[in-house]
Amino acid sequence: MPRLSEVIAALDTLWPPGHAEEWDAVGTVCGDPDRTVSRVLFAVDPVQEIAEEAVRLGADLLVTHHPLYLRGTTTVFAGTFKGRVVHTLIKNGVALYVAHTNADRADPGVSDALAGALSLRVTGPLVPDPTDQHGRRGLGRLCAVEPALSVRELAALAADRLPGTAQGIRVAGDPDALVRTVAVSGGSGDSLFDDVRAAGVDAFLTADLRHHPVSEAREQGPPALLDAAHWATEWPWCQLAAAQLDQVSERHGWGLRSHVSATVTDPWTAHAAQAPARPAQTVPVPGAAVAAAASDDASGAPN
Amino acid sequence: MPRLSEVIAALDTLWPPGHAEEWDAVGTVCGDPDRTVSRVLFAVDPVQEIAEEAVRLGADLLVTHHPLYLRGTTTVFAGTFKGRVVHTLIKNGVALYVAHTNADRADPGVSDALAGALSLRVTGPLVPDPTDQHGRRGLGRLCAVEPALSVRELAALAADRLPGTAQGIRVAGDPDALVRTVAVSGGSGDSLFDDVRAAGVDAFLTADLRHHPVSEAREQGPPALLDAAHWATEWPWCQLAAAQLDQVSERHGWGLRSHVSATVTDPWTAHAAQAPARPAQTVPVPGAAVAAAASDDASGAPN
Amino acid sequence: MPRLSEVIAALDTLWPPGHAEEWDAVGTVCGDPDRTVSRVLFAVDPVQEIAEEAVRLGADLLVTHHPLYLRGTTTVFAGTFKGRVVHTLIKNGVALYVAHTNADRADPGVSDALAGALSLRVTGPLVPDPTDQHGRRGLGRLCAVEPALSVRELAALAADRLPGTAQGIRVAGDPDALVRTVAVSGGSGDSLFDDVRAAGVDAFLTADLRHHPVSEAREQGPPALLDAAHWATEWPWCQLAAAQLDQVSERHGWGLRSHVSATVTDPWTAHAAQAPARPAQTVPVPGAAVAAAASDDASGAPN
Amino acid sequence: MPRLSEVIAALDTLWPPGHAEEWDAVGTVCGDPDRTVSRVLFAVDPVQEIAEEAVRLGADLLVTHHPLYLRGTTTVFAGTFKGRVVHTLIKNGVALYVAHTNADRADPGVSDALAGALSLRVTGPLVPDPTDQHGRRGLGRLCAVEPALSVRELAALAADRLPGTAQGIRVAGDPDALVRTVAVSGGSGDSLFDDVRAAGVDAFLTADLRHHPVSEAREQGPPALLDAAHWATEWPWCQLAAAQLDQVSERHGWGLRSHVSATVTDPWTAHAAQAPARPAQTVPVPGAAVAAAASDDASGAPN
Amino acid sequence: MPRLSEVIAALDTLWPPGHAEEWDAVGTVCGDPDRTVSRVLFAVDPVQEIAEEAVRLGADLLVTHHPLYLRGTTTVFAGTFKGRVVHTLIKNGVALYVAHTNADRADPGVSDALAGALSLRVTGPLVPDPTDQHGRRGLGRLCAVEPALSVRELAALAADRLPGTAQGIRVAGDPDALVRTVAVSGGSGDSLFDDVRAAGVDAFLTADLRHHPVSEAREQGPPALLDAAHWATEWPWCQLAAAQLDQVSERHGWGLRSHVSATVTDPWTAHAAQAPARPAQTVPVPGAAVAAAASDDASGAPN
Amino acid sequence: MPRLSEVIAALDTLWPPGHAEEWDAVGTVCGDPDRTVSRVLFAVDPVQEIAEEAVRLGADLLVTHHPLYLRGTTTVFAGTFKGRVVHTLIKNGVALYVAHTNADRADPGVSDALAGALSLRVTGPLVPDPTDQHGRRGLGRLCAVEPALSVRELAALAADRLPGTAQGIRVAGDPDALVRTVAVSGGSGDSLFDDVRAAGVDAFLTADLRHHPVSEAREQGPPALLDAAHWATEWPWCQLAAAQLDQVSERHGWGLRSHVSATVTDPWTAHAAQAPARPAQTVPVPGAAVAAAASDDASGAPN
Repeated sequence: MPRLSEVIAALDTLWPPGHAEEWDAVGTVCGDPDRTVSRVLFAVDPVQEIAEEAVRLGADLLVTHHPLYLRGTTTVFAGTFKGRVVHTLIKNGVALYVAHTNADRADPGVSDALAGALSLRVTGPLVPDPTDQHGRRGLGRLCAVEPALSVRELAALAADRLPGTAQGIRVAGDPDALVRTVAVSGGSGDSLFDDVRAAGVDAFLTADLRHHPVSEAREQGPPALLDAAHWATEWPWCQLAAAQLDQVSERHGWGLRSHVSATVTDPWTAHAAQAPARPAQTVPVPGAAVAAAASDDASGAPN
Repeated sequence: MPRLSEVIAALDTLWPPGHAEEWDAVGTVCGDPDRTVSRVLFAVDPVQEIAEEAVRLGADLLVTHHPLYLRGTTTVFAGTFKGRVVHTLIKNGVALYVAHTNADRADPGVSDALAGALSLRVTGPLVPDPTDQHGRRGLGRLCAVEPALSVRELAALAADRLPGTAQGIRVAGDPDALVRTVAVSGGSGDSLFDDVRAAGVDAFLTADLRHHPVSEAREQGPPALLDAAHWATEWPWCQLAAAQLDQVSERHGWGLRSHVSATVTDPWTAHAAQAPARPAQTVPVPGAAVAAAASDDASGAPN
Repeated sequence: MPRLSEVIAALDTLWPPGHAEEWDAVGTVCGDPDRTVSRVLFAVDPVQEIAEEAVRLGADLLVTHHPLYLRGTTTVFAGTFKGRVVHTLIKNGVALYVAHTNADRADPGVSDALAGALSLRVTGPLVPDPTDQHGRRGLGRLCAVEPALSVRELAALAADRLPGTAQGIRVAGDPDALVRTVAVSGGSGDSLFDDVRAAGVDAFLTADLRHHPVSEAREQGPPALLDAAHWATEWPWCQLAAAQLDQVSERHGWGLRSHVSATVTDPWTAHAAQAPARPAQTVPVPGAAVAAAASDDASGAPN
Repeated sequence: MPRLSEVIAALDTLWPPGHAEEWDAVGTVCGDPDRTVSRVLFAVDPVQEIAEEAVRLGADLLVTHHPLYLRGTTTVFAGTFKGRVVHTLIKNGVALYVAHTNADRADPGVSDALAGALSLRVTGPLVPDPTDQHGRRGLGRLCAVEPALSVRELAALAADRLPGTAQGIRVAGDPDALVRTVAVSGGSGDSLFDDVRAAGVDAFLTADLRHHPVSEAREQGPPALLDAAHWATEWPWCQLAAAQLDQVSERHGWGLRSHVSATVTDPWTAHAAQAPARPAQTVPVPGAAVAAAASDDASGAPN
Repeated sequence: MPRLSEVIAALDTLWPPGHAEEWDAVGTVCGDPDRTVSRVLFAVDPVQEIAEEAVRLGADLLVTHHPLYLRGTTTVFAGTFKGRVVHTLIKNGVALYVAHTNADRADPGVSDALAGALSLRVTGPLVPDPTDQHGRRGLGRLCAVEPALSVRELAALAADRLPGTAQGIRVAGDPDALVRTVAVSGGSGDSLFDDVRAAGVDAFLTADLRHHPVSEAREQGPPALLDAAHWATEWPWCQLAAAQLDQVSERHGWGLRSHVSATVTDPWTAHAAQAPARPAQTVPVPGAAVAAAASDDASGAPN
Repeated sequence: MPRLSEVIAALDTLWPPGHAEEWDAVGTVCGDPDRTVSRVLFAVDPVQEIAEEAVRLGADLLVTHHPLYLRGTTTVFAGTFKGRVVHTLIKNGVALYVAHTNADRADPGVSDALAGALSLRVTGPLVPDPTDQHGRRGLGRLCAVEPALSVRELAALAADRLPGTAQGIRVAGDPDALVRTVAVSGGSGDSLFDDVRAAGVDAFLTADLRHHPVSEAREQGPPALLDAAHWATEWPWCQLAAAQLDQVSERHGWGLRSHVSATVTDPWTAHAAQAPARPAQTVPVPGAAVAAAASDDASGAPN
């Protein structure tokens, strides 16, 4: 069985830390380089529930996509929720390794796995990494939709193929527009809007979109936007990453056992749908005179 | 009929520009101070669709909650979508006035209107303005829920009372937990998490929440989080604001006609729900060997 | 007749926006890209008087050298003097286009026009643009004075050939020194002093010079400095630019009518000359005792 | 006879270094604190010509308004013009002391002397120093003009009373407007435009004004602006300061001999007036075709 | 026996974290708030040797003066020496708590302990904390030396009373000068030179002084400087702190066992003295010609 | 005899100012470029004692390694100790020239001289200058120790060969470890620790090391660290530099007389050794109860 330092070297080859963004914090977060590793758990979020799952599973190594400490800390006190994770891992001999924007940029990477989950054919990166002469590394992926789907059908496909979450898929743009090409990006993709527009695709599937960027993007016209749960767009990478490590393990005869966590760490737990275009009731306001005035003079509420 | 400069002075009294955040851009964006005003339209977003609604309505003044230019511009060229709004307004003699974080902080303000829409009893501001000796101005509002509701019931109430949008209401936390007190904040409230926690409320209703802040907030325990469409949480303020201007108009005998736009400018147009905990299919990855490995070795997908 | 977007494309070719300084704000400030253009006015300053001249003239496009908004604005309210300009232009269908430091650097550019106004022979740029393989683009121009003139004569030439202003031409250095080579720079040239010294010319003609830079430059010896009104040094470019657009118009058969504004927008309206070296009278100071002391002990006033 | 350290203490009392702007560099620049002082020269600029005048005069101390090194230096090598001044002073035993923005703010200060030179009655500071309970210290001075003068007459008065320079007095605004109140500020006053406007005066007399601030100020309407040579507006202070030191000397029985330099260190040496509104000649441009086009199509040059 | 959280609360009362410098990182670094504490080790440096001593001793809590992570970290990987400390502590159930600049400022604090070790009478803080109405908190301490000692004798006293290190005590200044008053500061005190000079003391005892600050301080004259090993000046505080916690323990009946580490963590392990003023041999230089020239022309080497 | 400007040109060739660090301040600090130079003094520190030695010697030029003003100054007032140096030099016609980090990087440079003083064989720079194709310029030097010495013997060699100072040589690491390769760096070398570690040498000889960097370096294992007096590590360069200038002088037939100052400007004047591992006495603390508690409960003091 390999030592942790050997497994780290293999992971660093799959997702070179030097390919991460400058502000990112990737690599080994805790663990003893000399301990042996036999069981590995892959997950999106290094939260307490996942740390405990790793302990129950008897894993020696937890690989997550999200950093535990993106910004530096001067304490791992167990009275903080992140420190509690550190104590749980160290006391139980579980190492933690993070592959974040280096996994986003990798070939294959996070967005390849997202495209794969929807059976989309990847045609290249959305933002190519200029140092990759093969033109395959980079942020996001451009995909062909074959045969073409409507925006509504693409959303239904994403809802069907991605792991289920309470949030579902939100759509901005004409639901009946036809999508022949789509850009996909696991996680928060709003910083890529300019690249998406430049790529001329019909739609963009990503997560964590907010009112102002979406509103401004819509004012500028196509493409349509699809917003899934952040966790759901990155979970497929865990399967890809586990498979990649298994290949390495086989090559070296390490006999590692890889697992992908099935725990939903998307924080949304419920959803209340609204009837679109249902009339809002008259709005009571603090102060009766104002309220009265409001109900008389307003031109009518959206419905 | 009053001149625009007189109406501006009245609006500046309702929502003093000096109460806005330092980074904000409030007040008059375009318009001629000497023109008379007889018809006013209130809306959340200064987008092209709203500008054209103002023109069709014959409005002389459009009052929006969101700034057109939050960051400074050196051009209003009509080849840009914001410049198109400026041209539409100026050519048709429609002034634009913005009340943003000064309306958030006002008494009554944006979060009062949001609380009013849900018939919640406001007990005070979430972040009191230290310069207000009455203790009523400030960001967000603390409210009593009487009688108490479960988180699920509160979400259903919000879905019912707020104008309908494709996104609906997302919930993080135990849906069956009881809510006796709730903080509400129109628009993006994630910067207020520390204040919400310090206030010791059972739930927080706001908008535009993203994975990482919500995940970290949930790791720290209560309160539950409810996330509605950004636009929907601020639209009730338009009715309140229109009523406030009507009162001013009556007091001065101006005879203004106030309208609230019923146009939904929330950019989400459709939603595809997911079955929570539905199993994800095996993830095909680029490269057959990896895909094969992935399907063999992964410990199982979330369902 | 061309649409505005076509004329903009032509102007962008003459003075590529990418050649402007990073801090500059050039290009189209207002206007509708789809409107046709038949009459164009060129001027130095986008002030209200010029905007009204454009309206009176029936111009569809105003091209100025100075930006209207060099720093970003969040308002074009007509209660501000710049917003008044924007309203005047938009309401009357006049577009505004700015060519500033990109016109300074162009070949031919602002300093070529200045040199041309004085019949100086341009020998090259003062600060060559390293990306121009022809060695003709850049800031300022180096010129031969043929036959050589005294500094005083060069000032008289500038006074004679540049449009008349109240400020006239100020000279620093020995008026009788001989000038065989001169650097010229339209507008404020004090940031170019090091380049001028390095070029080894006998004189530098520019505008907007202040006490400290001039005093320090003089302490370092030659060259002589000539300071004309900022506006006067840039006005010749309007004629050049109009001629350039006329050529484009002819080539495309657009039939544009180009005009150069004759309005003096230099703000100085009068000048009171002083007898150089005239004795100053005793200076009364607040407080009689001090004044008395002052008049007794001072060694004598300049005359 | 006093030692230099005693004279410095007296000057620090007249113009406390702590009252200077944070960016300023005031106080003693060179000199030996233990040497005795018998003769003092006051001047505006610490240039080589003034240093040599101090040596010829046998002065032990030179007091100037402008700093020699406003920004820090790491060398006083005599191969630089400022280092040459330092060597001249130190080799000849002349100390240098600077009173700059602390003298601007003092009571009486630089602008009092400027007002005194024009026999204007000072009514208070333009920008009062909040730490002065008497309300007399601060930047600039507000003055009554009794009897009222036209702008043109005020400019003529300044031309007559201030030491003569080649630049004379430039005027922006209506020369015939009546001036009952005027703000004055020795040196570069363009940072005070907002205060001047707020003060509601009819005119502002200062120096070193440039095109853009003046143009923008004029677009906003009154007051009129008068621009004299920077040096000329500050020279009257030398007489005031010399008188103040004489008073101190008498009080202590020091027997100091004070002198005010009559050397004109304004760098402008000549001026070529222009006939306002004289027609500019057709502008030859590089490239015959363009020049031809230019002369045909331009609508006419300013005259 | 108390829980860790209770002991932390007591330590936070002795050395309030809010009294630390803004750049400092004090408080709990690792540990589980719910574990009980029975044995505590105090030391200066949180290095591996000390962590292992804590484990051997069976300590539940290690209190150090120096932070483990002064700047934030994103990893505690045991492949780094600091991460190794974290793993050692967490695996063995040892918490780590830091009191750094808050202990420096406390009453009694680090410099009180240093003064006490030399039997100096403390007369007050060197830099009083303005928020302490008793005038006892602050950085450094001013002390009376009774009876007065020479600088040489004071150095000998420090060498005798402080724990022994290879570096010993360095002295700058006249060894025979008399010291009646001395400032002391545990750790690196060079940022306090201005305060020491202002206090007018005869000597300053601190640590970690470097050439340039000492050289510049000596050029300005007294006081003499004494430089001990950084660790040695702070070790006495460990005894003081242990005694303080014992008092708290007694008051609460906690029965804590406090220990002070006797391990020398000063990194210097040996010292080679030099004969002061011993002649240096001729310096061979690379390149024979240069070396020859050097030995001929140099005026003589220090001895 | 050469003029100062000619000698400066020669020194600039030996140590090109462009090779200095960006933050450094090298070159000529004072002096008249036109004066002739016949006698030159080399020293490490430009302090008053050295300036007076230069005057006594009749030197026309003082060359030092350390800058007088590393950060810019706005005054050379003789009431400051650096201004006193400037006055002494200028009054006595002595120029000052600084070669600092450009001399560190030069070939041969400061660390070559240090290596030469210990008869170490230089094998290359520690941090090679990428612009030097010969691979000899750069910071620090790597050296072979032939035959190998123990750390203790190397320290003794340094103590013997470097000019004697009160501080002697401090050693961190195992004194008996064998040293076959050593990095040396004149002056403060703690910023080079990473390079030293990367070079894989057995020891590093430099100066001005402080507790925290040394402690952290030691925690990471070898190499051993040797810390001499800052001044002593740079003094050998003075001999080298004098020899270099002598060569230049001979080549030009200038007849310069070069001298190296034998004055010890290391500020440490005495040293009190400690018996390593001597027991510290019980520490009296302010407050009897605390002191009592301290002496009872502490586990024992280092000895």
